[in-house]
Amino acid sequence: MVKIALAQDNFWVGDIEGNSRRIIEHIQEARKNKVDIIAFPELALVGYPPQDLLHKKYFIKKNKDAINSIAKTVEDIIAIVGFVNSSDDSGDIYNSYAFMHKGKISDVYNKINLPNYGVFDEKRYFKPGRDISVYSFKGYSFSVNICEDIWRKDYVKLLMDKNLDFIINVSASPFHMGKLSTRKEILSYTARQAKCFVFYCNLVGGQDGLVFDGKSMVVSPEGKIVKAAARFEEDLLVSNFPLRAKAVKETQESQPETSFEALSLGIKDYVRKNGFKKVVVGVSGGIDSAVVVSLAALSLGKGNVYALIMPSRYTSKGTFRDALRICRNLGIKCSIVPIDNIFNSYMDSLKELFKGYPADKTEENIQARIRGNILMAFSNKFGYLVANTGNKSELSCGYCTLYGDMVGGFGVLSDIPKTLVYKLANYINRKVRRIIIPLSVIKRPPSAELRFNQKDSDTLPSYDILDDILRLYIEEDLYLDDIVNRGIKRSLVKKVINMVDKNEYKRRQAPPGIKITPKAFGRDRRMPITNKFSP
Amino acid sequence: MVKIALAQDNFWVGDIEGNSRRIIEHIQEARKNKVDIIAFPELALVGYPPQDLLHKKYFIKKNKDAINSIAKTVEDIIAIVGFVNSSDDSGDIYNSYAFMHKGKISDVYNKINLPNYGVFDEKRYFKPGRDISVYSFKGYSFSVNICEDIWRKDYVKLLMDKNLDFIINVSASPFHMGKLSTRKEILSYTARQAKCFVFYCNLVGGQDGLVFDGKSMVVSPEGKIVKAAARFEEDLLVSNFPLRAKAVKETQESQPETSFEALSLGIKDYVRKNGFKKVVVGVSGGIDSAVVVSLAALSLGKGNVYALIMPSRYTSKGTFRDALRICRNLGIKCSIVPIDNIFNSYMDSLKELFKGYPADKTEENIQARIRGNILMAFSNKFGYLVANTGNKSELSCGYCTLYGDMVGGFGVLSDIPKTLVYKLANYINRKVRRIIIPLSVIKRPPSAELRFNQKDSDTLPSYDILDDILRLYIEEDLYLDDIVNRGIKRSLVKKVINMVDKNEYKRRQAPPGIKITPKAFGRDRRMPITNKFSP
Repeated sequence: MVKIALAQDNFWVGDIEGNSRRIIEHIQEARKNKVDIIAFPELALVGYPPQDLLHKKYFIKKNKDAINSIAKTVEDIIAIVGFVNSSDDSGDIYNSYAFMHKGKISDVYNKINLPNYGVFDEKRYFKPGRDISVYSFKGYSFSVNICEDIWRKDYVKLLMDKNLDFIINVSASPFHMGKLSTRKEILSYTARQAKCFVFYCNLVGGQDGLVFDGKSMVVSPEGKIVKAAARFEEDLLVSNFPLRAKAVKETQESQPETSFEALSLGIKDYVRKNGFKKVVVGVSGGIDSAVVVSLAALSLGKGNVYALIMPSRYTSKGTFRDALRICRNLGIKCSIVPIDNIFNSYMDSLKELFKGYPADKTEENIQARIRGNILMAFSNKFGYLVANTGNKSELSCGYCTLYGDMVGGFGVLSDIPKTLVYKLANYINRKVRRIIIPLSVIKRPPSAELRFNQKDSDTLPSYDILDDILRLYIEEDLYLDDIVNRGIKRSLVKKVINMVDKNEYKRRQAPPGIKITPKAFGRDRRMPITNKFSP
Repeated sequence: MVKIALAQDNFWVGDIEGNSRRIIEHIQEARKNKVDIIAFPELALVGYPPQDLLHKKYFIKKNKDAINSIAKTVEDIIAIVGFVNSSDDSGDIYNSYAFMHKGKISDVYNKINLPNYGVFDEKRYFKPGRDISVYSFKGYSFSVNICEDIWRKDYVKLLMDKNLDFIINVSASPFHMGKLSTRKEILSYTARQAKCFVFYCNLVGGQDGLVFDGKSMVVSPEGKIVKAAARFEEDLLVSNFPLRAKAVKETQESQPETSFEALSLGIKDYVRKNGFKKVVVGVSGGIDSAVVVSLAALSLGKGNVYALIMPSRYTSKGTFRDALRICRNLGIKCSIVPIDNIFNSYMDSLKELFKGYPADKTEENIQARIRGNILMAFSNKFGYLVANTGNKSELSCGYCTLYGDMVGGFGVLSDIPKTLVYKLANYINRKVRRIIIPLSVIKRPPSAELRFNQKDSDTLPSYDILDDILRLYIEEDLYLDDIVNRGIKRSLVKKVINMVDKNEYKRRQAPPGIKITPKAFGRDRRMPITNKFSP
């Protein structure tokens, strides 16, 4: 019998010391519990993704010193620890793990398949490895590989004729909606092809715009999940091999629940890992800020969230009342800072310059930017992080004010389409079993309230249709004609595509946000600003 | 004799139609002039870099349709045109050129060496080609390759035993200071190894943060430059091969002159390619805005530049007078919008909230953000692009206000260290042979003027030392100890490194700017915001 532990832990990018400490603790604890093999996620020692830290030679050196120190602490147990391997001659570096046993690193494996698509840039840094690994222990034969390795069929083929008893895959696989089922397919395929168990150890935690969702698991040779760790939190998954191949029951992913969990971990980790404790949110009484402030309060604790309500002459009584009600429902502190006087002082100072020009979006944007300034002032004065409340639909269309409602350290909803914002609102009320977000907020036609009787629908199509177009154009990269063929009016599709293309410059200056969909803005979608192409 | 033309043209990203038209015009003109071979820069048809446009199938299709259409127009001349090749089976795409002759594409070459470092992401998109090309024409033998191909010695080796008479290299090589001499070395090495002439055709033009500087050239088998096209502008370099191997005299690159030219092209192209004609600059009377507004006026024409002067109680008389003087010297329109009343209205509205808290950087930032709001209001009302005036030194240290002085569509100086800003100021006065930027602006100790008697030196070391540390840390990725070993005080180096690391979040929301140094912020330096590593 072999006792295998998967340490699904939250390793911080760049924190070589802290990560080392946790790895050593885990190894010692595991040994006490008679574990034979303990595996850690991909690049556990340095966190994932370390990005251009990898260009610093002393970063690589510190990581090598640390892996050697860890090895010395490893007694009668096998520890598989992700780190950055490097060649002293060429200076080439590799995405690797060290196979440690009895005070020594007895093998180093270099990842063979380096992802360089979507959010991944691994070919920017790493050279690929060449040979797969096969180890034997207590009469069992097993192979260990790293994440993307088994996402390619030609690699899995190499494992087929090796008579393996099990495979350990150590990963740092970031979350998006639907990713878990893809992951299950990959693991199931690998297990069935190699005719053996697969032990999958994934990272957990938030890192800038990425959330690693954990959910480490064990898959049987028949391709069934027989054991699974927690999702979106740290866990230790211990199994005695051989183990019963009885499939566990897996619940279906629910869109609002799963995205709530991802957002919650994403915001918690962004806040604490960047040295903050508290966030401030501009609460308007609209649906987006209602969801953000609720998410923040439920994730960080109500004592760590502050709301600023900044009404103007265009704020309706209902909206204002709802803003107050949301804060009361959450039990968070809030202050009211009306913006009309400030707005008047701008208008007064600009009177001369703007003489003869009618009011237009300029005056609307000034208001949004006054609110941005007040939020940032609060942040500067009291050390709160500003949580941005913009959603993906408006960010796609540029229906937002740069330096206005686009301010903030972190974009909580920036990859959440508006239609999902509504689902999240309902989910939040269901989850806490009481009304936090008043129904009037959910029912009221959305409005930026930057002029009288303004409605989102003055500018945008209904969000149901808009989000469909956006998904087809942005996530699926479909052509105008193909989207029209789904039954949407050509002129509307054209208008939306044009808005998306023309507003790349705004997104380039948006705060980082949490990836939720298969394609988020930011490094997941790298479009030129200067771009003459029109579909 | 073979007549070879290199079409160093400004091809726009995404503008397949426009680029096609220009390519066809060039080919027809060349044929009239009895040119035998005409070559265009790398990916001329789609512009460089097309980034994630390459993920759109219909983009690839339009590009293929266009290359086929161009081929049909090619009569008795050889045209070498960069485009995106694709495999119908696998959907794989390649960075390629079409070798066209007599109405047909007679060969397609796929780039073998794909750069995936610095600003380049070619492995994100392209598969590498496999075979080098050799053509014969009029009894001469030649090979054509693409940019990075000849930047690797193993590739150049393949060309050595081919008995070539000449090589044509088509490139899209972006500018940075010092790049030209690296490029000359590469071309010289290639020519000497392959013992033949090299015809180098480079792209020209600005594309978001990149400037392609042209400077196409012909290098003799001895490695000497025997002919060179213009730099930073379109040109057509025509040679009769074989040609006299007499080296042309090359002037040394002068730092302020070269960066002036690069900035000038960068700003011109960003403005016009994004549909703007005019820019607005917040002119404070300080050195940064003086240089930006001068650069803008000299590049775009004085009628296309507007200055906003936004004094406060902290603005000194000298600074204010200098701001007016700069505008007068340039002959540009300006308006004065004092910000004190607006600032007072903020203070009044925040009185309650901030009660008992002393003034700190909050109040400074509010002023900067008021100016940001006014600049953006001007932009919204009159359709001017806001040119940002922040320099690389302050952006490195976070000595700037997010959404305040960091607003703008385009960061003119964001890769220019402060010490170079001064050199640019002097260069500008020399170039126009009169004082545009008053000496008082150049002499006055730099200050943000956001509180009484504030000086940059209250917060930052002298810029000479600061820029040294920044270069060593950011561009050369040196370790703390290595920088200290250059003779700089450890505590100072530590402080600066800490400022750089802690302010990644600001840079993430900075406007795009023009790459001037070997490592600019943005996609050239991809650091995590959340980062526990400390050197």
